[in-house]
Amino acid sequence: MAQRMKLGFIGLGNLGAPIAENLLESGHELYVFNRTSSKAIPLKAKGAIVCESISALAKVVDMVFTIVSDDAALNSIVQGKDGLLAHGKPGSIHISMSTILPETAVSLEILHEQHKQHYLAVPVFGRPEAARIKKLNFVMSGSESIREKLKPILQDAGAAGIYDFGEQVSAANAVKLCGNFMIAAAIESMGESISLAKQSGVDTQAMWNMFTQTLFNSPIYINYGNIILQQKFEPASFTSKLGLKDLNLVRSQAASVDQLMPLADLLRGNLQELVDQGKDQLDWSAMYLGAKKNSQEAVIQE
Amino acid sequence: MAQRMKLGFIGLGNLGAPIAENLLESGHELYVFNRTSSKAIPLKAKGAIVCESISALAKVVDMVFTIVSDDAALNSIVQGKDGLLAHGKPGSIHISMSTILPETAVSLEILHEQHKQHYLAVPVFGRPEAARIKKLNFVMSGSESIREKLKPILQDAGAAGIYDFGEQVSAANAVKLCGNFMIAAAIESMGESISLAKQSGVDTQAMWNMFTQTLFNSPIYINYGNIILQQKFEPASFTSKLGLKDLNLVRSQAASVDQLMPLADLLRGNLQELVDQGKDQLDWSAMYLGAKKNSQEAVIQE
Repeated sequence: MAQRMKLGFIGLGNLGAPIAENLLESGHELYVFNRTSSKAIPLKAKGAIVCESISALAKVVDMVFTIVSDDAALNSIVQGKDGLLAHGKPGSIHISMSTILPETAVSLEILHEQHKQHYLAVPVFGRPEAARIKKLNFVMSGSESIREKLKPILQDAGAAGIYDFGEQVSAANAVKLCGNFMIAAAIESMGESISLAKQSGVDTQAMWNMFTQTLFNSPIYINYGNIILQQKFEPASFTSKLGLKDLNLVRSQAASVDQLMPLADLLRGNLQELVDQGKDQLDWSAMYLGAKKNSQEAVIQE
Repeated sequence: MAQRMKLGFIGLGNLGAPIAENLLESGHELYVFNRTSSKAIPLKAKGAIVCESISALAKVVDMVFTIVSDDAALNSIVQGKDGLLAHGKPGSIHISMSTILPETAVSLEILHEQHKQHYLAVPVFGRPEAARIKKLNFVMSGSESIREKLKPILQDAGAAGIYDFGEQVSAANAVKLCGNFMIAAAIESMGESISLAKQSGVDTQAMWNMFTQTLFNSPIYINYGNIILQQKFEPASFTSKLGLKDLNLVRSQAASVDQLMPLADLLRGNLQELVDQGKDQLDWSAMYLGAKKNSQEAVIQE
């Protein structure tokens, strides 16, 4: 256990819940809040103090973690009437783990400073099963004094690795978007490749064994390749809906820095297609199934 | 050294030359032929017997390796007047390492059988530098009795791994196309991701260190990521021109088995753009530079 602070945790979703549980198991005093309050019940049984409102939580904690689904949800937690800025203690620290736009991080840092609070960007790489076995990778950026203080607590939260991207608070969010984009690209390439091999009469399991022993011997290819080989898209660890949200963030960021990203456009299109087909709860590794329809349309249009 | 056979080697290009050299260094008696005869000189100094024609080589060897740039070049070596079918010894074995269409392998196997010769598909994964340190990965398919015989010789040729895809001779070529497609997809995603990070003010070297220690800790991402970070596209180990050829093969194969591959279409477009810009001798890891222009055009057309 790292140090004696009262910690808060807001956002007990698929990934938030096991991270909060890790903090509890490391012996931290943990105050939790979730919009859907039923999600706090399992944590209460493990010793968490469940708060009725964000303000109730903000008034007691020294450091609050948030992990929510999008920029709007985070802005509301911070700036709402019941929010952190209005009710947080002076000097308190907000550790923001959500995948959001880099420019949102910049705005939020300024707002926190105006309220004598601290804001750090600490997005996280890892699926819920990685959180449970403490194999998460955190990327962080923001004020140096806070970053140093934070490292032992992130260890308790389930870090296998902590990667420091310096003072510019937006940097960690940009890295997170780059990483999720590359994962999405890898997933689409696996989907198309495995489909081509199957159609060509290749033993796809043998092919995958080879690729993951040689050229592509990394967790992303091993884990997602197996999901695609088995077509096991439910239950999703990360839904197509969330994937679409992330690809929209990637494209927004690309537009804001004037960077053209045709591959990001293609991936976004596939995910949008899945969502439009009502398959938004499938794992995002199903995205190549959206690709099919897009491409057929393209052929028809030619 | 594996066994006492006279070996032949046709195609002493970037990858062929170091493989031939490995065979020589393992003590094999090696007869070589190359269309551009000057490329045989360094091998002659190392003990290779240089042949003036394919027929001269075919008449003496028990097993011949070929590695050439495309289906047409291979067909001409096999079916030309001076070719292997007309002049090869009965029972001789042709080990075909080129990246070609799976259906070409099927046709060539039939033709060899008609001439009492054997044809095996053994495409190879690895850049020239991997050949030199014997870290190649071979995939093979075709007649089982030959596959068994071949393994020790492939070890001598520089194999780190040998992956067997069974009797159907086209399978290894399909696997090779799937692998090159996935490499191309990874390269494009790295190009777009590193560009986005740079434009967003991220320390791209730190980002790359993180990605290759965690999510993408595989040779493809380590090697190509470094090339892209340093923008070191010359000298090329694998040119955009060859990459374009391979993506065209991927799309032909996809069309022949009725598989839609929008990502392959995008990659092909980027490589075509580079070639059209006269940048066909850059390494294919520059392909995202082609993407830029494509995408701008797409925006203009909207």
